[in-house]
Amino acid sequence: MSDWLERLERKAELRAKAGLTRQLRHRSPDDDVVDLAGNDYLGLATHPDVIAAARSALDAYGLGATGSRLVRGSTSAHGALEDRLAGWLGTEAVLVYSSGYLANLGAVRALTRPRTLLVSDAHNHASLIDGCRISGAEVAVTPHADVAAVEAALAAAPGRPAVVVTESIFSVDGDLAPLADLHAAARRHGALLLVDDAHALGVIGPAGAGGAAAAGLAGEPDVVVTATLSKSLGAAGGLVAGPAALVRHLVDTGRTFIFDTAPPPAVAAGALAALEVARGSDGRRAELADRAATVVRRLRAAGLEVSTPAGGVVSVTAPGPETAVAWAADCRDRGVAVGCFRPPSTPDSRARLRLTVNVGVPRADFDRALDVIVECAP
Amino acid sequence: MSDWLERLERKAELRAKAGLTRQLRHRSPDDDVVDLAGNDYLGLATHPDVIAAARSALDAYGLGATGSRLVRGSTSAHGALEDRLAGWLGTEAVLVYSSGYLANLGAVRALTRPRTLLVSDAHNHASLIDGCRISGAEVAVTPHADVAAVEAALAAAPGRPAVVVTESIFSVDGDLAPLADLHAAARRHGALLLVDDAHALGVIGPAGAGGAAAAGLAGEPDVVVTATLSKSLGAAGGLVAGPAALVRHLVDTGRTFIFDTAPPPAVAAGALAALEVARGSDGRRAELADRAATVVRRLRAAGLEVSTPAGGVVSVTAPGPETAVAWAADCRDRGVAVGCFRPPSTPDSRARLRLTVNVGVPRADFDRALDVIVECAP
Repeated sequence: MSDWLERLERKAELRAKAGLTRQLRHRSPDDDVVDLAGNDYLGLATHPDVIAAARSALDAYGLGATGSRLVRGSTSAHGALEDRLAGWLGTEAVLVYSSGYLANLGAVRALTRPRTLLVSDAHNHASLIDGCRISGAEVAVTPHADVAAVEAALAAAPGRPAVVVTESIFSVDGDLAPLADLHAAARRHGALLLVDDAHALGVIGPAGAGGAAAAGLAGEPDVVVTATLSKSLGAAGGLVAGPAALVRHLVDTGRTFIFDTAPPPAVAAGALAALEVARGSDGRRAELADRAATVVRRLRAAGLEVSTPAGGVVSVTAPGPETAVAWAADCRDRGVAVGCFRPPSTPDSRARLRLTVNVGVPRADFDRALDVIVECAP
Repeated sequence: MSDWLERLERKAELRAKAGLTRQLRHRSPDDDVVDLAGNDYLGLATHPDVIAAARSALDAYGLGATGSRLVRGSTSAHGALEDRLAGWLGTEAVLVYSSGYLANLGAVRALTRPRTLLVSDAHNHASLIDGCRISGAEVAVTPHADVAAVEAALAAAPGRPAVVVTESIFSVDGDLAPLADLHAAARRHGALLLVDDAHALGVIGPAGAGGAAAAGLAGEPDVVVTATLSKSLGAAGGLVAGPAALVRHLVDTGRTFIFDTAPPPAVAAGALAALEVARGSDGRRAELADRAATVVRRLRAAGLEVSTPAGGVVSVTAPGPETAVAWAADCRDRGVAVGCFRPPSTPDSRARLRLTVNVGVPRADFDRALDVIVECAP
C-alpha cells in the first residue's frame, strides 16, 4: 500500500538529479526584495484605491462569497465588475471566474462541440492545454506564432467547426501573437479565435484594453477573450469576454463556473477599483514600455540572450536548469526577485530567467536590479 | 461566422423550454434575506477574527498575490495556513490552491499513472468528474455509496493501480459516504482512497477535522483528502492533504498548482483565523446538527421528501425543475434564500431545493424560514 509513495520518492530523486526540484519560499510583509518576478505590472496590488475598495467590501460582505455565483455567491461587486470589464474590453458581456485557469477550461469547452478541431499554439499556457484536453476535441498543435501552419491546419479540416487558440502576450517569453493575421485566417475558414489576454490586459491596447483590442478585434462576433484579474489588476480571478449568448451559455452550462465558489466580494471590489485606475494609466503603460526596453538594452549589451517583449515580460536564456536556479538564487541573495522557469514550465526545453516589469518598483531600484542580474549571470 | 451564436441561441431556447435557464442575481450589502443557501456552515465568513486577519494581511501585502505560489505568490500567510491545516487534518502535509476545483483536478491527476483505474461514485462533484476526465485514465462509475460495487470494480482490475474517488458529505443531498468501508475495500485491493471533504471539514469529525478524520482515516498512507476553504472556513480556495511525498510531487509537477496565481494573502490569513475558530467550535457544530435535525423533522412533518443529512446540507425533492424554481422564488420573495438545484447540477434527473444550515443565522430567523419553505411548497 505504500508502493505509490516509494514511486513518488523515486520520481522526486530523478527530478532532483535533473535539477528540476521546486521549492516553495514564503515572503513576509517586511520583505524588501525588488520585484522583477511577479505579474503586478502596473503596481496596483498595493494601490490605495484597491486596498480601500477591498476593505470596504470585506466589511460589507464578509470574507468568502459563501457559495457559487448562482446560489449565494454573486454580489453587487461581481455584477459591477463584469459590467465595467465588458465596457473596457468592448465586448457584449463578461463572466468572472475564481481563477484564470478555470476561465480557460470553461471557455475552451464552451466553444467545442462534436467534431470541433482546436488549433492550439505550441507555447500556450497549461490552462489552455488542459482546456483542450478536457474538451475531448481533436487538437492540432501548431508551431509558435505560425499563421501559415494555423491556416494549413484549418484548410485540412474543411467543413468542420474549428477554434484557433492562442495567448496574446505569451506568459514566458513575453512576445505577442500575430492576432490580426490569426483572426483573418480563422475568419477565412469560418473558425473562431480564442485569445488569452492575461498578460496584455492593462498593459497594451487602447486604455489598456489588451491585445485583442490592440489588434482591432474587440467585440468581433467570432472572437472570444479570456484574461485574469490577478496580473495588471493586482487582484485574483479570471474572466471570459465575448458575445452575450456565450456568457448565457456559460452561466447555464459551464461546469467550472457553476460548480465553483464565487471569488470573494472583496477581491471583486478590489479588481473593479484597479480597473478604474488601469484604464486611466497611460502614463504607467509608457513607463512600463520604457522599462521593458531598458531591460532588453541593458541585458543584450551584457551579451545575454533576451526575448523581445511586447509588454512587461522578458525572458533571458540560461545555460541549463541548475544554472538558472543558481542565477536566480544569487539575485535573490542580493535582494532581487526574478522568475526561474524550467521544464515543464517552459514551452521548450530551455531554462530561462523570466523578468517582469512592475512600475510600482522605484526606478532606481529597478535599474540597480538590472545591474545585479548582469553581475550574477553565469 | 455567426453560425455558432445562432446555435447557442437555439440551445438557450431549448433550455428555456425545459425550465433549465439559470439567472445570476447579485446580493447587496444591505440584503436581509435569511441564508439557507450558502455553505458558510459555521457563520465564519463574517466572524470578527476572520475579518481582522484578512484586513491585516490586506494592509501588509496588498490585494493580489501577484504571481504563482512558486514564483512570487507565496507568503508567510500561505505557509502558516498549510502548517495549521496539516495539524488539524492529521496529515503530513497540505497544499493550498486558489479553488477546490483546481485542488481536485490536481489531486486526481497526481494519483493517476498509466493503466490506473479510477472508481468514481455516481454522485461525485463536477470537479472530481473533470479530474477523472483530464487524467485520461479509465473510469468506472459506481452506483452511489455502493461499497460492493466498488469492491467488484477493483476485483475486476487485478494488478492494476486503482483509486477510489468519493466525497465524504455529498454536496447536493448531504449524505455521508461509507468511508471506513470504502477504505477497507480499497486497502484489500491495494488501491488508494481519495476523499473530497469539502462539505465535512469544520462540520463533523474530531474538532471538526472532517469526514476522513471522523472515519479514523486521518494520516493513513493510502488516503488523500481534498477540501475547500470556502465553506465552513468562510474564505476561498481549496487544499490537498496527504503524505509529504504527494505534496512534493504536486509542487514539482502539478499543473493546476504551478500555473495558477496564488490565492490572495488576505484570503489565506482569513482562512487561518477561521481555522482557529472552527477547531474550537464544538458548540457551533452541536447547534448545526440540531438545526439540521430540525429541518428534517419540520419538513417531513409537512409531507415533504427530505434527505437525511450528515452535516449541514439537506435536499428536498421538488416535482420538477420549473416547480423548484418557482418554489425557491416564492421563498426569496418572502425573505428566505434557498438553493435550487436542477440538472445538470444534480446527481440524477430530480430537481431539488437544497437547504443549508448557517449557525450564524439567528435561531428565530432560521425557524421562521422553515415555516416559509413549508408554506411555499408546491
